Amino acid sequence: MPTYQTVRGMRDLLPDDAEMLTFIMSKARETAELYGYREVITPVIEPYELLSAKSGEEIRQRMFTFKDMGNRTVGLRPEFTSSIARLATTALKNEPKPLRTLSIGSVYRYDEPQRGRYREFYQSDFEIIGTSNPEADAEVVLLTDRLMKSVGLRNYAFKLGHAGVIRGILSQENVDEKTQNAILQRMDKKEFDEAFKLINSHPCLTTLRGSLELKTDDVFKTAERIESHVEGYCKAVESAKELTSILKLVTEGGCPVRSVEPAFARGLEYYTGMIFEVYIPELDIALGGGGRYDKLIELFGGEPTPATGVAHGLDRIALAMQMQNAAPTKQRRKRVAVVPVNEAVKAEALKISQMLREAGIVAELEVMGRKMGKALEDADKRKMDYAVIVGERELKEGKVMVKDLDKREQTTVDISELAQRILS
Amino acid sequence: MPTYQTVRGMRDLLPDDAEMLTFIMSKARETAELYGYREVITPVIEPYELLSAKSGEEIRQRMFTFKDMGNRTVGLRPEFTSSIARLATTALKNEPKPLRTLSIGSVYRYDEPQRGRYREFYQSDFEIIGTSNPEADAEVVLLTDRLMKSVGLRNYAFKLGHAGVIRGILSQENVDEKTQNAILQRMDKKEFDEAFKLINSHPCLTTLRGSLELKTDDVFKTAERIESHVEGYCKAVESAKELTSILKLVTEGGCPVRSVEPAFARGLEYYTGMIFEVYIPELDIALGGGGRYDKLIELFGGEPTPATGVAHGLDRIALAMQMQNAAPTKQRRKRVAVVPVNEAVKAEALKISQMLREAGIVAELEVMGRKMGKALEDADKRKMDYAVIVGERELKEGKVMVKDLDKREQTTVDISELAQRILS
Repeated sequence: MPTYQTVRGMRDLLPDDAEMLTFIMSKARETAELYGYREVITPVIEPYELLSAKSGEEIRQRMFTFKDMGNRTVGLRPEFTSSIARLATTALKNEPKPLRTLSIGSVYRYDEPQRGRYREFYQSDFEIIGTSNPEADAEVVLLTDRLMKSVGLRNYAFKLGHAGVIRGILSQENVDEKTQNAILQRMDKKEFDEAFKLINSHPCLTTLRGSLELKTDDVFKTAERIESHVEGYCKAVESAKELTSILKLVTEGGCPVRSVEPAFARGLEYYTGMIFEVYIPELDIALGGGGRYDKLIELFGGEPTPATGVAHGLDRIALAMQMQNAAPTKQRRKRVAVVPVNEAVKAEALKISQMLREAGIVAELEVMGRKMGKALEDADKRKMDYAVIVGERELKEGKVMVKDLDKREQTTVDISELAQRILS
Repeated sequence: MPTYQTVRGMRDLLPDDAEMLTFIMSKARETAELYGYREVITPVIEPYELLSAKSGEEIRQRMFTFKDMGNRTVGLRPEFTSSIARLATTALKNEPKPLRTLSIGSVYRYDEPQRGRYREFYQSDFEIIGTSNPEADAEVVLLTDRLMKSVGLRNYAFKLGHAGVIRGILSQENVDEKTQNAILQRMDKKEFDEAFKLINSHPCLTTLRGSLELKTDDVFKTAERIESHVEGYCKAVESAKELTSILKLVTEGGCPVRSVEPAFARGLEYYTGMIFEVYIPELDIALGGGGRYDKLIELFGGEPTPATGVAHGLDRIALAMQMQNAAPTKQRRKRVAVVPVNEAVKAEALKISQMLREAGIVAELEVMGRKMGKALEDADKRKMDYAVIVGERELKEGKVMVKDLDKREQTTVDISELAQRILS
């Protein structure tokens, strides 16, 4: 007889881990609500065309794709932004701008599994569509700050950059977009030599190389140095100025920015403006990241529409919480085992359980048919607060026995006062 | 330029529909917590072998299956029970019994799309593993009752049956399991002639046919009639008696049972005991259903382990709520638009927004760079409660202007008292 395993790269989240993940999801929903983002739910299965339109070669190659029974080429979403771009050009096209959306769910990438990386993983994705103002970029950074704080993380810090700096230089030098993408991808992986080979001996190479040397410990100073370094490349200068505005806004908002990176690109090709990531010191993978993508919506058939957004890696946030011993904060309900002494009082025990639940108490009815001793032992093992023992003699007087499993005390209580007694 | 659509059978849930679905999910989680069920999160992608082991021919044929890049034959889960059975025989094998689990998420079936039926749909799934007692069966019915009530549905009612009645007759007559499954499947679709053809002229045919005539308006009487009708088939009699016990328990628990159906089977082959479904009068598809499956866990390599469970169709519950005008009940937060009068006070407006959010107020910062009039018009259209206008003159005195968008009144308020004023 076989014992089935999960498919390689997939995993089961057992109760404690699932609680962590749903806690983070609830904090993402709370953050969204407070910032005015409304949740939409898009399909896991999307047209391959949609998912591959602007995902970047890397993600495209690692997508789960197949033909459905209607011979349609489909894929499992590797991220949410394409689906949201679709919505922004179809069903939500005529909504007042800005359009603020939240998506929460699983995404799929065929990566080599390792710690903190699975082929099915969970994200919360916030998008703000319809504005090119820096305060929108600041907002997605700040709401990420709020999410990190609300799940109990400490010492996290942000890394900021702007895709328009390097792109601005390359565009002005007439480097085509495909080569730009290839260069940015390699720079993102810190394969600078590989990147620079792509525009071998081009006059702008000195400026590009020089941009790698601009980092200082003072993020405002770094931004300033970028601005003067790219002088003459007007789009690049504009981008550097925008980066400074965003940096000011997020810093004023109390958000910890650790570094400004001139040659920071991120994996996705669609970024056109500010880009950012957030880290904790204990972990060298980003807990979340995003940026501005002003060209994507029109690619999906919409009007030219500026947009910016962020995706949070919920599994990584869970891992970070474990590393920092941050536990889900949740109002803890009282937990009670309800144990009938025999068959005859089963229905009464069931009704008492229901009454307790209506009062907001967790009631686990003894359904194993165990003897009292075994049932109480089990209640103890499960760390229940009380056992309610339903016996015929007490029932006749409208009472039950209540055993405080912590204090090891037993008293007889009127059924009408039972919930109150347990809650007090 | 293309406008991308969703794949046939898939759909986007826009904000109002998504809110409905997440509301139902939150009620399923609350129900689970009160009954002592802990959530686990299993993968959408599972080994084809696992999913097809005992799904029933019908579901097997409508499964999304494909080969992943490692040439593994995988499928998208059409339901949760197989994954939970896997967990019960592996990672959760040594947990104390009963094991109570909750799963919430999307499942996939390649059905012909129609109202209330999609190829991607959402379920909450409760399983209780390790006990064969009728109070466990009663519990999954009663928690379904609680879920229906908590989302605001009215006039829903349950249909009960027991797979052991028909199976008991057929087993005693030495009809093999495969033929039993085929018969039950046809009976479930009310294709009785087709079903009976499979055991043409068998002596038990009269008993089977007769069982279709036992229904009365009184559910207890129907159960009693089933018991006497199958006299001589000892397993069938036992099953009928068990059905009566469960019926008593759920009725005592306040659960509305509309009918007891002798020839009720449900689609899945793995049911061995009590089976049930819940309906509202306005809709002829079940909102949820489940039953006992005592043979499944051992099929997955575990010890023989009795189990019972229920799956709720969350999309159908949402549809039912719409038909009955039941709206999500949720604590409504105050909603405020924060509008800076010019560029110079943007950072201040951002900080005020953050302060409001920390007080639990929804604050949408004006990020479109619109003039005051347009921004207020938009706030009105979005049905915000207040607009907070951040101007330089007022800021100097530590104040902002607050416009009550309902009463159309405007006052100047100290920033330190702003949140309090809005909440009061």
